[in-house]
Amino acid sequence: MKKFLNHVETLLDESLAGFARAHADLVELHVKPCFIKRKQPTRSGKVAVVSGGGSGHEPLHIGFVGQGMLDAACPGHIFTSPTPDQIATAAEAVENGGGVVFIVKNYAGDVMNFDLAVEMLECPVKVVLVQDDVSLPKEHDIGRRGVAGTVVVEKIVGAAAEAGVDLAALKALGDKVAACTASIGVALSGCNVPALGGPTFTLPPDKIELGVGIHGEHGRALTDFTSATEIVKQMAEAISEDLKPEPGQPALLLVNGLGATTLMELYLIYELAYQFWRQRGLDICRSLVGNYTTALDMAGCSLTLTLLDEELIRWWDAPVCTPALRWGC
Amino acid sequence: MKKFLNHVETLLDESLAGFARAHADLVELHVKPCFIKRKQPTRSGKVAVVSGGGSGHEPLHIGFVGQGMLDAACPGHIFTSPTPDQIATAAEAVENGGGVVFIVKNYAGDVMNFDLAVEMLECPVKVVLVQDDVSLPKEHDIGRRGVAGTVVVEKIVGAAAEAGVDLAALKALGDKVAACTASIGVALSGCNVPALGGPTFTLPPDKIELGVGIHGEHGRALTDFTSATEIVKQMAEAISEDLKPEPGQPALLLVNGLGATTLMELYLIYELAYQFWRQRGLDICRSLVGNYTTALDMAGCSLTLTLLDEELIRWWDAPVCTPALRWGC
Repeated sequence: MKKFLNHVETLLDESLAGFARAHADLVELHVKPCFIKRKQPTRSGKVAVVSGGGSGHEPLHIGFVGQGMLDAACPGHIFTSPTPDQIATAAEAVENGGGVVFIVKNYAGDVMNFDLAVEMLECPVKVVLVQDDVSLPKEHDIGRRGVAGTVVVEKIVGAAAEAGVDLAALKALGDKVAACTASIGVALSGCNVPALGGPTFTLPPDKIELGVGIHGEHGRALTDFTSATEIVKQMAEAISEDLKPEPGQPALLLVNGLGATTLMELYLIYELAYQFWRQRGLDICRSLVGNYTTALDMAGCSLTLTLLDEELIRWWDAPVCTPALRWGC
Repeated sequence: MKKFLNHVETLLDESLAGFARAHADLVELHVKPCFIKRKQPTRSGKVAVVSGGGSGHEPLHIGFVGQGMLDAACPGHIFTSPTPDQIATAAEAVENGGGVVFIVKNYAGDVMNFDLAVEMLECPVKVVLVQDDVSLPKEHDIGRRGVAGTVVVEKIVGAAAEAGVDLAALKALGDKVAACTASIGVALSGCNVPALGGPTFTLPPDKIELGVGIHGEHGRALTDFTSATEIVKQMAEAISEDLKPEPGQPALLLVNGLGATTLMELYLIYELAYQFWRQRGLDICRSLVGNYTTALDMAGCSLTLTLLDEELIRWWDAPVCTPALRWGC
């Protein structure tokens, strides 16, 4: 495994320094504890939107800090939750009289540490939990994992917060978009964790991991490597079984690369998924294709579908000005 | 080698269909011959800016079609030049009374086919040749390759064309920015070409290819895999020896991923390159970090430095509205 790095221990800090420097017009880096905060001042009374989680999923979450999305993001070490102190300090730094919404991917460590941060804070805080990965059943004992649908939740909640929506309504909006968002991933390979010096897992040449998590967690099944059309069908059916969209339903389709998959393949996957759902009457009216929630250098992708209504379309279309997602500004 | 595809022969067409559909607000796909054109109408008399080349480098060039950058892009098959017919038809489709600028990466096939297209066209056409890869000496018999610096040339020329700059001045501007742009790449691995079913080359575990081309061409040297700081130093020195920037010189730094390299690594590389040039007095005042000119799924990156002046900064900062580069709109 060859990776660009000086020392495993300093990789994240050096990288975050570069990130903040390259996007100095949009974000600022705070060290000890470490977080990225938006540079542009916010209006007094605006609810602060804060997220975070283990690093290695870039651009999630740091790439989504900025006007119309996150006010701060707390990057933990690679595949490791940020600490309660880190989260609470970030929240205090961006709280501006309107309280705080935490957007949290459903992993035990993240949930615990964000909950501890809530207890440390004196301002009102609401937590929106993202558990969009349909590879696990809804009744799974620790619930479903949060994966690329997190980007959609962050965009929608961030846009509404920017427009002045209050804390209680933002919590309701976040829960609403999280509930109508479903994702599933597929891995063609494992990913190389720098501290391990090698891949998290290996797959036989003729197998893929359907329902893989963004840390390489096992999914639904080790299935045959087959045509893109067949793989997309398996993924899209899993999502459709969960969301049960009605014909005519407007929807957002996100095709997310897990790290080492070419854009050429991602757009192929997009086309096949679009065709799948169009044949079932869905109105895919919003789209996003690219690397938004990665698993280091994993080869693979995920599909995310969000069922939309007029309110969600309005927030999705609202201006966003972040390093990784930018339109209308 | 596992890739998402149905058939090698249909991969590109299916992928382009998905690309055009996902970005239907910005671009349109023309088939037989194949090109991507911008959707937004242009003012009469605007010079049309057209580029193209082999596929496999996405988002280059298709991702840069739109307001403020390219009017059309002609994707050839993977690592294969577009045909003269394809290029000429695309140019005719977007020519609007001001003539056409072709932005061409310096590869024998591309140069020949764009030149043949010039002969086929009745409107005035100028060619801007990009040969930013400093891994080869300037006096190399077929000249230097065009690599990621192409993105900078397309952005600068596209912005000026949008603002109404005429054909002769655009040609001069394109030549100017191409002349003050230098790049060098490094590969940690080969890339997998779908039609080959495997990698273009393999590297020993302790070696990297310094000066690699975006099709996996050999570079300056097979060198030791060492620290990121040392690798960046070798790359940045090669660029500095070529451009010989003066202290205080404003510059744009582009850190480009070749496909399978994480953003975490790219931002680390950015930080190290920034420090290298800051210590030598350069004023890195504009930055771009991400996958902009890829070599399929190659692990590796390239550095590009463009020496700026007030004019180039103005065109760089101008609004751009394309699938892969967007700001100010």
